[in-house]
Amino acid sequence: MLHQSLGRIEVRAPRQGLHDITDEIERWIAGQGIGTGLLTLFCRHTSASLLIQENAAPAARQDVETYFARIVPEDRSLYTHNDEGPDDMPAHLRTALTETQLAIPVENGGMLLGRWQGIYLFEHRREPSRREIALHLVGE
Amino acid sequence: MLHQSLGRIEVRAPRQGLHDITDEIERWIAGQGIGTGLLTLFCRHTSASLLIQENAAPAARQDVETYFARIVPEDRSLYTHNDEGPDDMPAHLRTALTETQLAIPVENGGMLLGRWQGIYLFEHRREPSRREIALHLVGE
Amino acid sequence: MLHQSLGRIEVRAPRQGLHDITDEIERWIAGQGIGTGLLTLFCRHTSASLLIQENAAPAARQDVETYFARIVPEDRSLYTHNDEGPDDMPAHLRTALTETQLAIPVENGGMLLGRWQGIYLFEHRREPSRREIALHLVGE
Repeated sequence: MLHQSLGRIEVRAPRQGLHDITDEIERWIAGQGIGTGLLTLFCRHTSASLLIQENAAPAARQDVETYFARIVPEDRSLYTHNDEGPDDMPAHLRTALTETQLAIPVENGGMLLGRWQGIYLFEHRREPSRREIALHLVGE
Repeated sequence: MLHQSLGRIEVRAPRQGLHDITDEIERWIAGQGIGTGLLTLFCRHTSASLLIQENAAPAARQDVETYFARIVPEDRSLYTHNDEGPDDMPAHLRTALTETQLAIPVENGGMLLGRWQGIYLFEHRREPSRREIALHLVGE
Repeated sequence: MLHQSLGRIEVRAPRQGLHDITDEIERWIAGQGIGTGLLTLFCRHTSASLLIQENAAPAARQDVETYFARIVPEDRSLYTHNDEGPDDMPAHLRTALTETQLAIPVENGGMLLGRWQGIYLFEHRREPSRREIALHLVGE
C-alpha cells in the first residue's frame, strides 16, 4: 500500500554557485523504507534554487555559473530592489530562471537520474549560508 | 491511508505581471481534509505561468517584470508568430522561461513555503484575463 | 485505493528543436488503469529538456527555437566546456532554462492540459538521438 514521508534537510552553501547535493538526498531516501515512488524536493528560499546538471565536468558547472552571471548581471543600476546588496535582486531572478522544486521518480530505493545527472543547490548570494530543502516521498 | 483531491480554481489577472495567488491556494487546501502531503499546481495556459517569488518587497516584483520585459522584448521584428499582437510570442517565451507547474509539500494543512516565498500567477498578456489553475493534492 | 505506476518511454529526436510527445504520453497513461491522479515526466538527460508550448502554430515553435539559439548562442568562445562540440555547453544551458521534469494532473484517463498546450521534448544537440523519459503516475 502507498505511504508517504515528509522531511527536511539543511545543506551548506559555502559560496555562490553550484553545490552537488545528490548524495545527501540519496541518503535521506534510503532511510524512508520506500523502494518505488516519487520524490519531490522543494527549496524554501527565493535566493537559492535547484538544478539538475552535468555531473562529470567541473568546467560545465563553471560555465553555468558564468552564463547566469552574464544574463542576470550584478549591476545595481538595473534594479530598484537592492536592499541587501548588488547580489540581492540577481538572486531572485536567477531563482526565477531555474527551479524551486524538482520531482524525480524513485526505483530500487534510488532516484531515476540519468547517468550524467546530478542534483545541485544553486546558491545565488555571495555570503556563505545554509539552505533548507523540504523532501516529500510517496510510494511503497 | 493516502487519498487525493483534484480541483480547479480560476484566478483573476487584471493586468500584465505578477499576481499573488498564495491565499487562494491555501483556502483550496484547507477544504480538502488533507493535513500532510504534496500539492501540485498546474497552469492550463501557454501565455501565463507560475512563479515563486519574494513576497515582501513590491520593488522586487517590479524588477522581475522589468527583467522579463528586457530579456524577452515585445518587439514584433524578433518573431514570426504575432497573430495576437506584439505580446503574443513574448508571452509564450516568458512562460517557457518560468514554470507551468509547481509541486509543494504540505504540512499541518498548509504549504511548506519559506518565510519570504509567495506564489504568483505571472500574466504575460496585456489584456485583463482569467486563468485556470488545476490543483492536485495527495496525502492524508 | 491509490496506486502507482512507473515506466519509461524512449522518444525520437531526429533533429535539434521541439518534438511533440503528447500522444506518446497519452498512450502510456491509457495503459495504466488510472483515471484520476498525477503524472510526472522526467527527462533523464542534461542535453534535452521538456517544455509545454503552444500546439497550434508551427511559427510559435520556430520562434521558441530561434529565441533559445539567441540567448544561448553556439559560440565556443563563450564556454570552457566544449568537449563534444559547439552545441555541448549550450545544450546544458538551454536545459537549465527550461524543464527536466513536469507534473500534470490526470482526469478521465487523460492529462488536464489546456486547449493550446502540447508537451514537447526540446532536443538541444544537433545529432539525431533517442531520449529516455521516465513516467510516474499515482492515482486511482
